[in-house]
Amino acid sequence: MKQHYQHLVQKLEEITHLNGVMSTLSWDQEVVMPVGAGEARAKQLSALAGVIHERMTDPALGECLQQLNNGSSTYFSKAEQCNIREAQRNYDLETKVPKRLVQELAELGSRGHSIWVKARQDNCFADFAPVLKNFLLLKKEWAQCVSPELQAYDANIDLFERGTTMAQITPTFERLKQELIPLIGRIQNSAKHPDTSFMQGQFALDKQEALARQISQDIGFSFDRGRMDVSVHPFCGGSHPTDVRITTRYKTSNFVESLYSIVHETGHALYEQGRPYELGDLPVSESLTMGIHESQSLFWERMIAQGKPFCSHYLTLFRATFPKNFSAITIDQFYRALNVCKTDFIRVEADEVTYPLHVILRYEIEKGLFDGSMQVDDLPYIWNELMRKYLGITPPNDTLGVLQDSHWSGGAFGYFPSYTLGAMYACQFYRTLLKEVPDIEQQIACGNFAPIREWLNDEIHRQGRLFTPQELVVKITGEPLNPDYFIGYVNSKYAEIYDLAS
Amino acid sequence: MKQHYQHLVQKLEEITHLNGVMSTLSWDQEVVMPVGAGEARAKQLSALAGVIHERMTDPALGECLQQLNNGSSTYFSKAEQCNIREAQRNYDLETKVPKRLVQELAELGSRGHSIWVKARQDNCFADFAPVLKNFLLLKKEWAQCVSPELQAYDANIDLFERGTTMAQITPTFERLKQELIPLIGRIQNSAKHPDTSFMQGQFALDKQEALARQISQDIGFSFDRGRMDVSVHPFCGGSHPTDVRITTRYKTSNFVESLYSIVHETGHALYEQGRPYELGDLPVSESLTMGIHESQSLFWERMIAQGKPFCSHYLTLFRATFPKNFSAITIDQFYRALNVCKTDFIRVEADEVTYPLHVILRYEIEKGLFDGSMQVDDLPYIWNELMRKYLGITPPNDTLGVLQDSHWSGGAFGYFPSYTLGAMYACQFYRTLLKEVPDIEQQIACGNFAPIREWLNDEIHRQGRLFTPQELVVKITGEPLNPDYFIGYVNSKYAEIYDLAS
Repeated sequence: MKQHYQHLVQKLEEITHLNGVMSTLSWDQEVVMPVGAGEARAKQLSALAGVIHERMTDPALGECLQQLNNGSSTYFSKAEQCNIREAQRNYDLETKVPKRLVQELAELGSRGHSIWVKARQDNCFADFAPVLKNFLLLKKEWAQCVSPELQAYDANIDLFERGTTMAQITPTFERLKQELIPLIGRIQNSAKHPDTSFMQGQFALDKQEALARQISQDIGFSFDRGRMDVSVHPFCGGSHPTDVRITTRYKTSNFVESLYSIVHETGHALYEQGRPYELGDLPVSESLTMGIHESQSLFWERMIAQGKPFCSHYLTLFRATFPKNFSAITIDQFYRALNVCKTDFIRVEADEVTYPLHVILRYEIEKGLFDGSMQVDDLPYIWNELMRKYLGITPPNDTLGVLQDSHWSGGAFGYFPSYTLGAMYACQFYRTLLKEVPDIEQQIACGNFAPIREWLNDEIHRQGRLFTPQELVVKITGEPLNPDYFIGYVNSKYAEIYDLAS
Repeated sequence: MKQHYQHLVQKLEEITHLNGVMSTLSWDQEVVMPVGAGEARAKQLSALAGVIHERMTDPALGECLQQLNNGSSTYFSKAEQCNIREAQRNYDLETKVPKRLVQELAELGSRGHSIWVKARQDNCFADFAPVLKNFLLLKKEWAQCVSPELQAYDANIDLFERGTTMAQITPTFERLKQELIPLIGRIQNSAKHPDTSFMQGQFALDKQEALARQISQDIGFSFDRGRMDVSVHPFCGGSHPTDVRITTRYKTSNFVESLYSIVHETGHALYEQGRPYELGDLPVSESLTMGIHESQSLFWERMIAQGKPFCSHYLTLFRATFPKNFSAITIDQFYRALNVCKTDFIRVEADEVTYPLHVILRYEIEKGLFDGSMQVDDLPYIWNELMRKYLGITPPNDTLGVLQDSHWSGGAFGYFPSYTLGAMYACQFYRTLLKEVPDIEQQIACGNFAPIREWLNDEIHRQGRLFTPQELVVKITGEPLNPDYFIGYVNSKYAEIYDLAS
């Protein structure tokens, strides 16, 4: 049995290493690749992807797993059990889908993206609709192959947010709608709006970069085991916990956007740098779901960096860096300006109060498409109706509406809920941290982020995949995901900022 | 037969693409990889190397080649014949060596490098001697496996400089010694030495980089299909003719070193960017030997950038960039300062007159080690004796002597001759270019490098591997490699610079 397990470890580590190579290629492509190298790179990626697929579907791996599953589970440690379980799942995901379907999905994903880019440019949803219809059919078939016991949309959600289903998401999102829609109304009607005029100006890029590096390092990013660079879209990538690479983009006219992107990506990076890779380059040391990952980035971006203690600590540095803008600004003014709530069309630019409604809208549409209660051709109308209902605004065109996100062009249905699950997890974790380290806000105000980093590291990063996300949340906070914390947080925070009657 | 060939192409292109991935990883490691990622990267490289080895030794590839070799060669085009021939050679190189020997070589290469680094630091040849002895045994055995018809050292040379043997190299190198040793003596005894004092100073790194970029681009480096970065040792890498990456290193105190490194690497890069990859990512579109590659880098570095027309064209730019140093300098002073000849211990810092003697010394030692006329333990003594005989100087220690190069620590015997073969090829090519484009020096003086680039591209880069190096040299210059051109070039150039009686 031990021999079978050793064999499994060898095969899984090889796959991890090859996936690490793939990640380095992706980073390279986004950050440093010459413009003319696209075609050659596509062939290199495809060759490597072919090798990885071959390894992941290796019949010898299947046989090895079968031997291990025939053995007694008590023979193995928790970490070993986790590796066997995760390897089986990955093997099933790769092998249960017929090759024809894999190829059709890959082909549509690549074609779909270009069609979406053009349709969005041309503001023409009708051009994109066939891709969407086709993806729905393929993704339903795919769901039937990999998880016939689940509803098709749940099987898609499961890919990003293991163990979470519509049965849990729908009531949670209903709760959020009930609370957030009226809150946004009260905010819009408030007489008191933060002054953001001092955030406008010209901010030298080298100063922005120095600030981003400083704050990322203060928070805990290890530059010995990572890098910070520039790319068109900010991301956190890299090939290993010892090689984590974050990016941002800089605009002369707006330093907050790039800085808070870096804080966000640093949150992801701390998760990656903190993984327990001494357990091997194996599934057990990997990060959990998209939602838990997002909880880490949003924890630092929102719970910490948009909070008053953080503003208090860094105001001096901001004043020294951008004296023209910050010399006369108080902590309170800085804090308010950072936390403006404003309804707008674009999800990625939304604030923490309106963001969940962007997500809920997409969730409801995906759910409707999968259960047949909505039709692809009606999406522009449905989208705009829901925008009006939830945020009180109507996109002037589909480019700013139903065509804004790239996710569907790649067939990523079921991804959106993770963003808001992550936001709620972050709040619930922060609440527990406050209980366990009662002086945490004073620590932040002094620039001492170590207790937060260590707490997240112990409680989450170093747990790898030993627990399911659901188990982990209960283990840390004593209860399952509870939207009350998020609702309580935004209600009280924005009541103060906008001077709302409670 | 066509089907077998298609099958071969598919397999060869996959290998090329995976090798391209490997090259991207190497570049990453030298240029951007975080310091802490070394261990993880080693595992990733090893996984990928394993896959590539598996593909290169795939028995199906061997069978496919056998089928193709059984067919009539007239059936195939010259390019197709080249692919079959090269594929067979690579397959033989990979499969004729027993796995045990491959592993021993790899293991010794990795261990040998660290031992060399430490021995060099500690100035202790005795620590390194066992590695060298071991490598000699393994490399002799390796030669017997891959080319039993060749002498062992010739088989090693063949790996870098296909088709060239000691029978050609030895008399050529004897000629060089006869000419260069007295020339260096006359130079040292000359009363007239170039003034290099204006080359000293403080040169801002951003100005150095701008200069390097400008000149590299002027010469013809395509930044759309390549990059320029900083690394500890300058190199030309990248994954494909559309993705060629050169590096240099900058010192505040010396701008010539970094600039001429960039010109050198640009020469390599133009070869890579100019390869005929429209013939497929296949052996036929690859570069020829190390010596031919070096002929391209040295062509630009020495024949062009160390020439007077080049100095004439760029003096204005140098004056504008570093006015303190260059404002009072004439073209002639600039040219002389660039072409100082000075005996010294270190090969990589040698000038074009003394460099061949560094190479010849190493060649004679390698030859002696392989034919048994020299013993490893005697190398420090032999090295210093030859340095005294050829360059009139004796290294004060082995760190500056026999331990200076990394090549032997990786078992790369037979590599050194390529440097000087390249220098001689470059001269011979330049001589032909002068005949075919008689006004080329005026063109250079006007900054018009296109005729040179196009000539090298047509004559060499775009020929891929259709010809052997020996055939190519005859095709271009009308005769085989002839050291007279190099000898004539250095004699007349340095007679002028040092005012030597002819």
